[in-house]
Order: sequence, then C-alpha cells, then structure tokens
Amino acid sequence: MAKSIQEQKLGILGGGQLGRMLVQSALDFNIDIKILDPDSNAPCKDIVGEFEVGKLTDFDTVYNFGKDCDLVSIEIENVNTEALQKLADEGINVFPQPKVIDLIKDKRVQKQFYASNNIPTADFILVENKEDAANHREFIPAVNKLGKEGYDGRGVQMIRTEEDLAKAFDAPGLLEKLIDFETEISVIVARNESGEITSFPAVEMVFHPEANMVEYLFSPANISESVEKEAQRIAKEVIQKLDMIGLLAVEMFVTKDGKVLVNEVAPRPHNSGHQTIEANYTSQYEQHLRSIFNLPLGNTENIVPSAMVNLLGEEGYTGIAKYEGLEAVMSKKGVHVHLYGKKLTKPFRKMGHVTLRGKDIAELKETVEFVKKTLKVKA
Amino acid sequence: MAKSIQEQKLGILGGGQLGRMLVQSALDFNIDIKILDPDSNAPCKDIVGEFEVGKLTDFDTVYNFGKDCDLVSIEIENVNTEALQKLADEGINVFPQPKVIDLIKDKRVQKQFYASNNIPTADFILVENKEDAANHREFIPAVNKLGKEGYDGRGVQMIRTEEDLAKAFDAPGLLEKLIDFETEISVIVARNESGEITSFPAVEMVFHPEANMVEYLFSPANISESVEKEAQRIAKEVIQKLDMIGLLAVEMFVTKDGKVLVNEVAPRPHNSGHQTIEANYTSQYEQHLRSIFNLPLGNTENIVPSAMVNLLGEEGYTGIAKYEGLEAVMSKKGVHVHLYGKKLTKPFRKMGHVTLRGKDIAELKETVEFVKKTLKVKA
Repeated sequence: MAKSIQEQKLGILGGGQLGRMLVQSALDFNIDIKILDPDSNAPCKDIVGEFEVGKLTDFDTVYNFGKDCDLVSIEIENVNTEALQKLADEGINVFPQPKVIDLIKDKRVQKQFYASNNIPTADFILVENKEDAANHREFIPAVNKLGKEGYDGRGVQMIRTEEDLAKAFDAPGLLEKLIDFETEISVIVARNESGEITSFPAVEMVFHPEANMVEYLFSPANISESVEKEAQRIAKEVIQKLDMIGLLAVEMFVTKDGKVLVNEVAPRPHNSGHQTIEANYTSQYEQHLRSIFNLPLGNTENIVPSAMVNLLGEEGYTGIAKYEGLEAVMSKKGVHVHLYGKKLTKPFRKMGHVTLRGKDIAELKETVEFVKKTLKVKA
Repeated sequence: MAKSIQEQKLGILGGGQLGRMLVQSALDFNIDIKILDPDSNAPCKDIVGEFEVGKLTDFDTVYNFGKDCDLVSIEIENVNTEALQKLADEGINVFPQPKVIDLIKDKRVQKQFYASNNIPTADFILVENKEDAANHREFIPAVNKLGKEGYDGRGVQMIRTEEDLAKAFDAPGLLEKLIDFETEISVIVARNESGEITSFPAVEMVFHPEANMVEYLFSPANISESVEKEAQRIAKEVIQKLDMIGLLAVEMFVTKDGKVLVNEVAPRPHNSGHQTIEANYTSQYEQHLRSIFNLPLGNTENIVPSAMVNLLGEEGYTGIAKYEGLEAVMSKKGVHVHLYGKKLTKPFRKMGHVTLRGKDIAELKETVEFVKKTLKVKA
C-alpha cells in the first residue's frame, strides 16, 4: 500500500519566505519536513524538525540531503538538478521534475519551448554575448535577459537605444521584443500525478519601477472575460506541455489589442499567489502540497477581492530590520501582515508582504496606497 | 522607548494544539517564541526556536522558564500561577493576569464572581464533598462540577436522580441547576492594555453526547438579533469586570424563553474559535497576540458562513494515528483540514479539526454530516 502523506518525509530545497509559507501550510497536514538552505538564519530555520545548512547547487549536498526523503520539492529553481535526477532515478519522487526545472531555469530553453509548442510569447532571438547582441539592432526596443541565474529582477535589462545595446549582458542570453502591454497578469496552475489540473483566477501585477519586482497586485485582474479565458487556457496548456507535476506560476502580458503572451514561468509557489492564503478557498502553498503528494486539488475560487503589497527593504537602510507603521497598518480593516522572519534588511530585500481584502478594486486601491506610504522597513 | 513586538520574547505555557495554532499565527509577525510543555512530543515541539520540557504546575519550572521573557501567556489554565505572579511582580508582562487565571480555574470562584457581578448564570450551590451534595436534593436535576482540574469534559457530570447524587464528586465542587436550554453558544472577546474591546460574532455549539466536548459548531449562530446583542453585551461585561487582558471565550446557554446565561469561560484561544482562521478577517489566535502585545485589535467579522468539526480519536483505537477518508474530505469544496501533529491517537483525543465554508447553514450541515461519517482517526 502507498504511504500516507503523514508517513512520508518531504525535503524542500530552499528555506526562504516561500519555504516558510509552505511549511506554515504543511503544518495543517502533519507533514514531516526537512529543509536545505545555504543560510543558517534562513526564514525556515526554527519551524521544521530538520534544518540543514548547505549549498543548493552542490551535487553531493543535494543528493545526500534528498536520499532519505520520500518526496523532494523546491522553493527556488537555482538548485543542482543532476542530483535531483539521480534521486528520481533511484525511485524518490521529485516534483517538479528535474527536467522541468532545467528547462525553466534557462530562459533561452524556456523561450524555445514556447516557440516550438505554439505557446504565444514575445518574439525573441538568442544572443551569445555582447557583440552578438550588437548585431540585432532590428530588435530595439528590446528586453535583454541572461539565460541563467536571473532572479528577482536581476539578469533583466531594457535596451531602448543603440547605446544601450553596448551594455548588453556579455553572456548567453536573449533579446526579446519589447511588448507594448496593457497589463501584466499571472495565473497559477497546478497538476498532480493523476493528471488533474486546476488554475487560480488571474491576478493583475504592478511592478516596482526600479526594483523590477512585483510591487503590488490585485485579484481578480481587471480584464475581460475572454482575456481571462485565454489566460487560463494558456496556463493549463503550458503545464500540460511541460508534463509537469507541481505548481506553476505563469506570468503573461496582455497587449493593447487583447492578445495574451507568456512572459515567463516559475515551477513553485510564487509572489503573485501570496494573497491566496487569505483570499481564496485554497492557498497556492496548500495547492503545491496537494499536487506533489497527488492529493485531489483544492478549490481555487476567490472568496473576496484582494490586493497584495510586497514589503521591500527601504532604500538607504541596511541592518537589523525595524517595521515602521506596523500598528497603523494592522488597525486597517481587512489587512493581514506577513513578515518573513529576516533579521537584516537591505534596499529592495523582500521582507514581508501585506494582504488586503476589500469589497472592490476601488476600495483596495485606496488601502494599497495607505499601506505603501505607511509601512516601511528601516534599520 | 517601548520594545517592538519583534524585539520581545514571548513565553507560552503549553505546547498543545492551541499553542501550535498560536505559533502558526505568530510566524506572520516574526515573534520570538519559547514554549514550555511536559510532553517532549507536544504539537509545538518542532516549530519554535526554543522548546522546553517541564511541568506547567511546578513553581520553579515556570518561574525559570519565564524570567528571560518580556511577555508570558498561556494556552491552558492548569499552570502555576504563583510563579506567574512573581514574574509579573518583577515587571514581566503576564497576560492573562495570574489572578484572572486563578479565578477562572476554580469553577466555584468563577461562579461566585458571576453572582457578585450580576452576570446572568444558572443557579448554583457550593458543595464540599459527596455527603454535602446529598443534602441538596432540591437542586436535582443538576450538573455537578469539580471546582478544580476539570478539562475537556472531565470533572463534569449529570445528576438526574437521587441515586445519581450518591455518585457526586467527593471533593469541593458545585451543583448547578440543569438549564433547559435551546442552544449553547460562544462569544470570543478580546481586550488589550489600552482598554480596547472587540468580540467575534456568536457561534452555535453542538456537543458530543459521550465525550462532553464540542463535536461541531456553526458560525454565525442561528439566534435572534436580540439574543446576539445580549450575548455580545455579556461577553464584553465579563472581560471588563475581570479586568482581564487577553482573549476570553465565553460559553453561554440560550434558554427556551430567550435568556442568555454564562456557562463558563476560558482565558485563551478556544475550541469554539478554530473556524476564525479561515472564516473571519482576523483569527482568534492573531487576536490573542494582538491583545497581549497591546496592538490594535483586528476586525472580527465573518467573511463567509462556516462550520467546524472536531476530529476526535475513534473509539476502540489506540496507537499511531492513521487518517481514514482524508482525501475524500479534502476533495470537498470549502473544506480545510487541520491536524495537530499528534503521533498517538486514543478514544476521544482531539487529533485535529475541519473547517467548512459554505453559502448557508443548510449547505454546511450537509458537509458536516459528510465529514463526520467520512473522516476517522484510527490506529
């Protein structure tokens, strides 16, 4: 007989805020969790039975960490997938599958996957280095992305002019035609081993102009029914074509003429799904667990309209974090604060987020503005 | 300047399921928590930075545990309050206050408090022992309660006949006139040091006939507006008259002629508030934290109608817990399962609970029946 979820040991690579929220959810199911993170002060350090310090990109570390687990998953893509593949070959469940992580963590391979599977995405061209990029003036204005190791706004830059082209990344990457989009949205989709697929309603993201990270979002997105339907269709098609088991965040552009194009994906809980903890029947974290344990997937419907504001370290402050305005924000109706347990702040570090629930987008926008100007992480 | 909540150490006496859900909530605020519990396998053991094994009723253990804390609270009343008082005298915040815990944990003192403060409650008489009880035939039918150490259905029995009277507890207790009630309800109220008071909408409880524990509940309670108003008034009056800081669950009878009488209270998160995690804007656990840290109290409104079913160890099974029907229950829309991390089950042990959200009481009742007959804890 198959082991129950309480009899299995789950190993998670990465013990940051996504791991922390995943553990918070897993507590409700008595799941035995073990975490690996390079930082001995990672947000997960005190909340699991076993916390190991080690490099996520090191073969032996990952392999040795995983070999007494029944199931291994991730909260970050930058991990040693050769070790994960060896674990999978030896019969341990590894979800998302190592080959899917490999495909996604190289943005060049990811884009080629969309192209060869007829998944709508912005036009692009692969470039090997800075000189190569300079040969493609016809792509300007473009977004220049590094193939590997981009994360949280790093490894992505705008190329608006020929002079900008001279600053292109000097490593394998790509140039992507700049999309004149109306909105950026995200759909989080999950798939389990039984082949069940469910997706959350689309959310609308607003990016921080400097940090190139989600600053806040609204759920549901303010888009037409047909755009919503198309976004849902695409998200489901991507996870199916990837043949992936787990949770996948699909970030998309909605162009001014109503086309939906995939921007990029992440095979794990995602910043664009934090608000599901309070505002949906099932949270993205619980859905991730349900998908990798091959449980029936949960109801993804919104309960109430919501917004989510990322709480980034204030510019100009580095050191022990202090939360200014916390009480004022906590006294607002419908507001829920999540801090990530990080002792040190630095500019733009993700220190927490705030979920807002309200009757409609207009009310939520007001509260978003209040939270943004009131709650500050300083040192 | 006062320390921020992140700079304070919170010590909690008791590391059972209530402590566990409190810690789950506290994680969102980066609260540094230390827990004391006599059981080295208590539900909280792996989820806090410091977990100490020791007797909650021992003076030295409690005093030594608490003296490096900034704030000490409880998840169970049966603790050494002399040690807590000494900590309070030495300047540590102890909420609820030791004198309030003392008053509540002796049901005789608790009843006298209601009587002397004009808080409506069932008529009662104090009895010193079995012989004394036999002198009070005029009270039959009655409920016989032990003064101290009753918990989860223990220390309470029905006295319907003169023969029953011969089985009265042979220790200081009380006889309470049996109330011919229509419903049992509970209102959870919180008060902070600034004097702010807020209460949750009443819930309606259905008790397990044998275990004498809440079997399931509905929120909101199916009561008239005037009964709701009276219940809210009474709950607020009790916490105010107790001059208590913290969270107080006030269990009440609604009589057939619409009177509201206090049954008993608990100065901590309570079984009748579990559903607030998913179904209210603020959970009782977060509200407990807000009240003891003197933060603004949260919005207590219901988001959706809900029900809560306690998951008790099945009769006839003792040993390593297995959860039968878990997948079937998790596949129901609006259902959220909470397991408490207890390895061993025994008959009627509280192993978890299930929160149900639905459009109305009729729909919820159906799902309650489904959960009760489907989900079983066996060994």
